[in-house]
Amino acid sequence: MKIELAESYGFCFGVKRAIKIAEENPGSATLGPLIHNNMEIARLKRDFNVSLVESLDDVKPGSATVIRTHGIPKNDLKELLAKNTKVIDATCPFVTKPQQIVEEMSQEGYDIVIFGDKNHPEIKGVMSYATGPVYAVLSIEDLEKIHLRERVAVIAQTTRKIEEYNKIVNWLVPRHKEVRVFNTICNATFENQDAAKELAKRADVMIVVGGKQSSNTKQLHSICKSFCPDSYHIESKDELQKEWFDGKKLCGVTAGASTPEWIIEEIIGKIREFKV
Amino acid sequence: MKIELAESYGFCFGVKRAIKIAEENPGSATLGPLIHNNMEIARLKRDFNVSLVESLDDVKPGSATVIRTHGIPKNDLKELLAKNTKVIDATCPFVTKPQQIVEEMSQEGYDIVIFGDKNHPEIKGVMSYATGPVYAVLSIEDLEKIHLRERVAVIAQTTRKIEEYNKIVNWLVPRHKEVRVFNTICNATFENQDAAKELAKRADVMIVVGGKQSSNTKQLHSICKSFCPDSYHIESKDELQKEWFDGKKLCGVTAGASTPEWIIEEIIGKIREFKV
Repeated sequence: MKIELAESYGFCFGVKRAIKIAEENPGSATLGPLIHNNMEIARLKRDFNVSLVESLDDVKPGSATVIRTHGIPKNDLKELLAKNTKVIDATCPFVTKPQQIVEEMSQEGYDIVIFGDKNHPEIKGVMSYATGPVYAVLSIEDLEKIHLRERVAVIAQTTRKIEEYNKIVNWLVPRHKEVRVFNTICNATFENQDAAKELAKRADVMIVVGGKQSSNTKQLHSICKSFCPDSYHIESKDELQKEWFDGKKLCGVTAGASTPEWIIEEIIGKIREFKV
Repeated sequence: MKIELAESYGFCFGVKRAIKIAEENPGSATLGPLIHNNMEIARLKRDFNVSLVESLDDVKPGSATVIRTHGIPKNDLKELLAKNTKVIDATCPFVTKPQQIVEEMSQEGYDIVIFGDKNHPEIKGVMSYATGPVYAVLSIEDLEKIHLRERVAVIAQTTRKIEEYNKIVNWLVPRHKEVRVFNTICNATFENQDAAKELAKRADVMIVVGGKQSSNTKQLHSICKSFCPDSYHIESKDELQKEWFDGKKLCGVTAGASTPEWIIEEIIGKIREFKV
């Protein structure tokens, strides 16, 4: 049986980069969990002595602090820089960009609309860079409640869907003289989905790796199942069953966005051991 | 019987303004017809000695030349200014604005997309202000044929529909880092339609005034007919028939975008004479 990995799977560019940064800074502490995967956080602690602090108050003097992919609000960064800590910025470049756009557009006098969740850390950080009016909206109903001036700049949370973003833009264009639309959506999630679909169409059996609670892994599994009925969602190699692979010619493997590479490698190793 | 004019009808703001400018400059010549209505052009000639020249070559030395609402290409303006003629600019401000936007956005390095007809005088004029790449498109198919860089500025011909404009924007947003959307659509046509509809709902008889070939007048008539079956499309007072008004309580009047005020006044005068 041939084993084939999806063209795109697992960690996105920003998370891979943040983990590399953490590994290059042994003994540092991340401000908030670097990733929603406890096994990976445990590995960073064990192999690189990278620990976790939950809030600014917990940052220790003389330490090194890693800012995670989400970024942090401008004032938190100021506070962090004022502390006796080495600041290591692992903010995803796809998040730094909207922060810069918001800062610039505010300075140029645009009202800012962010298509995203105001309670999400990424959006809290991005919003903090506005020096003028800024609003986070999730729907047309949210837009109807706010009053915007003639010139509006719009950005989107990196994980939003473009179709939904266009609905926001469509509502704004007829109502304003100028709408400056920045495409700040990151395609990583959709790239994993597209690649999983393409592979599931050809595979006899699909293994989808990721936390049982992870919504993006569940979505990947659901997509795979609709193209390849023998699709299994597992968290670790211990769940694999030899009979799943009996008589199969092509086994596809993909993984959710919070699944570390080494877990995927372990699983592929175990499948190979079945010698199907 | 009560006679009521639609809240909005006839000439748009830009045409009214251009006619006033022509009237204030007796003896001048317009470069191209000021309006698609021969009776109005004849009136301007008769009452204000405003004549018509068809092309730049026909501009007479020592004359005064009126630029019509559509505007003219930048090079034509240059040529005109170099001639021994007084240039009187009656370009509609809603057309001057997109000309300025195109010039500025070109200078700032944006590729320019114009949603409009490249053969229309307005668009020929607007396009001429670009100093970099500029494309006039009417459909997604047109967009697919061109190659645009990362930052795009978009404007629309003043008479386009906003829903169609949004389709162009929706195609561009996912494909570019920044799409700067300027709402250059003028609502005059739609305001006449909305007002006609509102009045037709209440009227017992509707008189729609305008050229029999005028597409916007035909559209107004069709809208009126669907709300008020006794709707008549006429060009002049001679077509009015007394029996149309027998037993009616409210007569609504509207007019196409090229219909001069004095024709409407004549028609209302004639209806009053019926003493219904």
